Amino acid sequence: MERTYIQNLKDNVDKEVTISAWVDVARDQGKMAFFDFRDGTGFVQGVVFGKPDVLEVAKKLRPEWVVSITGKVNKRPEKMVNEGVDNGDIELEITGIEVLSEAHELPFDKDTELNIDTYLDNMPLTLRSEKARKTFKTQANIIKAYREILNEKGFTEFQAPKLVGDDAEGGGNVFKVEYFKDKDAYLATSPQLYKQIMVGVFEKVFSTGNVFRAEKHSTTRHLNEYTSLDAEFGFIKDHTDVMAVLTDVMKHINKSIDGDLKIPEEIPVMKLREAQALISKETGEDCTEEPDLEPAHERWLSEYALKEFNSDFIFITHYPVSKRPFYTYEDEDDKGFTKSFDLLLRGVEITTGGQRVHNYDEYLRKLKEKGLNPEGFSFYLQAFKNGMPPHGGWGMGLERLTQKILNLDNVKEATLFPREMNRIDTLLTD
Amino acid sequence: MERTYIQNLKDNVDKEVTISAWVDVARDQGKMAFFDFRDGTGFVQGVVFGKPDVLEVAKKLRPEWVVSITGKVNKRPEKMVNEGVDNGDIELEITGIEVLSEAHELPFDKDTELNIDTYLDNMPLTLRSEKARKTFKTQANIIKAYREILNEKGFTEFQAPKLVGDDAEGGGNVFKVEYFKDKDAYLATSPQLYKQIMVGVFEKVFSTGNVFRAEKHSTTRHLNEYTSLDAEFGFIKDHTDVMAVLTDVMKHINKSIDGDLKIPEEIPVMKLREAQALISKETGEDCTEEPDLEPAHERWLSEYALKEFNSDFIFITHYPVSKRPFYTYEDEDDKGFTKSFDLLLRGVEITTGGQRVHNYDEYLRKLKEKGLNPEGFSFYLQAFKNGMPPHGGWGMGLERLTQKILNLDNVKEATLFPREMNRIDTLLTD
Repeated sequence: MERTYIQNLKDNVDKEVTISAWVDVARDQGKMAFFDFRDGTGFVQGVVFGKPDVLEVAKKLRPEWVVSITGKVNKRPEKMVNEGVDNGDIELEITGIEVLSEAHELPFDKDTELNIDTYLDNMPLTLRSEKARKTFKTQANIIKAYREILNEKGFTEFQAPKLVGDDAEGGGNVFKVEYFKDKDAYLATSPQLYKQIMVGVFEKVFSTGNVFRAEKHSTTRHLNEYTSLDAEFGFIKDHTDVMAVLTDVMKHINKSIDGDLKIPEEIPVMKLREAQALISKETGEDCTEEPDLEPAHERWLSEYALKEFNSDFIFITHYPVSKRPFYTYEDEDDKGFTKSFDLLLRGVEITTGGQRVHNYDEYLRKLKEKGLNPEGFSFYLQAFKNGMPPHGGWGMGLERLTQKILNLDNVKEATLFPREMNRIDTLLTD
Repeated sequence: MERTYIQNLKDNVDKEVTISAWVDVARDQGKMAFFDFRDGTGFVQGVVFGKPDVLEVAKKLRPEWVVSITGKVNKRPEKMVNEGVDNGDIELEITGIEVLSEAHELPFDKDTELNIDTYLDNMPLTLRSEKARKTFKTQANIIKAYREILNEKGFTEFQAPKLVGDDAEGGGNVFKVEYFKDKDAYLATSPQLYKQIMVGVFEKVFSTGNVFRAEKHSTTRHLNEYTSLDAEFGFIKDHTDVMAVLTDVMKHINKSIDGDLKIPEEIPVMKLREAQALISKETGEDCTEEPDLEPAHERWLSEYALKEFNSDFIFITHYPVSKRPFYTYEDEDDKGFTKSFDLLLRGVEITTGGQRVHNYDEYLRKLKEKGLNPEGFSFYLQAFKNGMPPHGGWGMGLERLTQKILNLDNVKEATLFPREMNRIDTLLTD
């Protein structure tokens, strides 16, 4: 019999159907056996009773076995309906079982609460849990919504290379790759230089792809490889145009995933120095001389934005020139500070962006200031020799965004197969 | 005045507007000056006459300068309309020019036909050409259509890591990365192992992302880094289910980009040995003992499919077990050959796919057969211990697909910033 997807069972009441599924739960009750079955479209309960030959097979089934089940779709009596459960108002009366694939005995129930290392060691099982499935389904919907809104706004997607010839931003936290001709290559820490080149081609561009940071962090918010949601566009007035588009993107994502993010019409904005003055005044801890925000300060500002503006987001602008990469635009009216921003969400920075330099001579000056050799940037610098409008954009980590949207403790819970100092799938031993 | 996008000029006839754009073409004709302007949404012609002060500025403008132009949108007289040209029925009568950003003198006109190395050396300019813009706009639409049809079919997108702990397929053509703890990591040649794990999670999955091949090829069809369009799904009968979904994907892409691909209701299918027998019979050159198709044979088969079936595509199935990776499913009814396929498009293989092994013990056997150590695959193998349905999928290079759809000579013309033996943006010197 042709396969029926579980999501379509409700349209087949009183009919005989065949589903193909995993055994999610198996409960042997002597003369009866109950199951939850799972396919890519949903869950349904099944029951065997009064059929000794079927029951005999049913008693062998274990969680994660793969089966083809034939049965009749019964409507449940009103008082037996499981409210809020997938297909809670129907039940499959099983008349035939075919085992497609057995599973070994599982090390633990996939939905058990586990410590993070056990969870990561066993991802081919633990990703099948309800929590992980919800997380990564949401993540798929976030990236879909991200591309959707930018396509609507006339942005063109492009594919950025990950193998690059130089440590472009001079930050030093790059992975080295053995390339051809005894040359080294590096893994891109961002598509920054390419998206600026592409502004010259399409004016408005975006890119979604992996980036790499060889940082020896082991925290709940850092990853050595993550998915970067990038955008860049031309003919801006200044960084506030970039912030406005990003605000629209966030609203669209929140709507698309039916999220609970609080986003006011305009997200509150504060200069870094204003934020530091406020924190110092309110907490008594002087941070006005620091070049950046500490994690605790980011949390404080988010709580403040929620309390004062009913906003889960807050923009912090005007980071010092010394703390931003060479391509960052200095504010003519606030020398020493940049037209750049971080966007904080629920206590953590999730986006960095701003206006970029667009003048060729200015690039030569900036590169030298940062101790970088313009020669190494000659390919990229062509874009500015060839005429570039004022432009800007942002980069945003998909995994951290997913984490904060779902209020997960650790970014690794929002990352498929996280790469970290101590792990590539399995733990690295010394 | 607020900026008007060029695509909206036709709605502003007889009005004064301001556009922001690049100078695409500048023609000084003494008392008049003509321009083509380009923004992210289109092209428009502009003209200056009878305004000496505006003309003075206009005469300075050069290609790729970035400008803000104020002017009146005039409808052209019937006989002056440029048919088939963007905004060919209107003209901008320029009343004001503001230069936002100058360009240096260009090394050549961006639309000049160039040899491939000059084209690649100058991509920040040459990508602005009409041909390149068309190519990469089409590429953006291909990947959009790819995700669209798979989302419609209930596939879930996932993000695959590019840093991997092992040379998973044992092919040896992998880039090595210096990882932490004095360990080496590698760049993934495909998301194969991860997409199989993800079938256990969502049943139907897809992924779009870069993959890496450290092959010392220098041809018109190979790249060392490319964008792989992957999909994988469970509960298949055999590889023909995979071919059927892939056929739908191709039809949707062709329709979405308004392409000219010839795709019959069912794409013709031939076993490798049948194809070789046919080629040998028709050309007199015996290739029946070869384990794979030569490029000339792929071209011959494509010509055959076009002539006999009016199809730009042809599936070749049943490659020998010895030529396919360890996870490939052997045909029980045709021992020694696999339930795998290549899809040829206009003379070139653009997709490889098939059914995969789903039984754990079979994996142990296959890995040993290929001389691979199951220990190195222990993380991945959990998926099969945990219950996996019969499944299959494909991988397809976005750049090669773009190349063949647009009939470009070289895959590098369909690749943004191609990585090859001799080049990462700039040429590598010995």
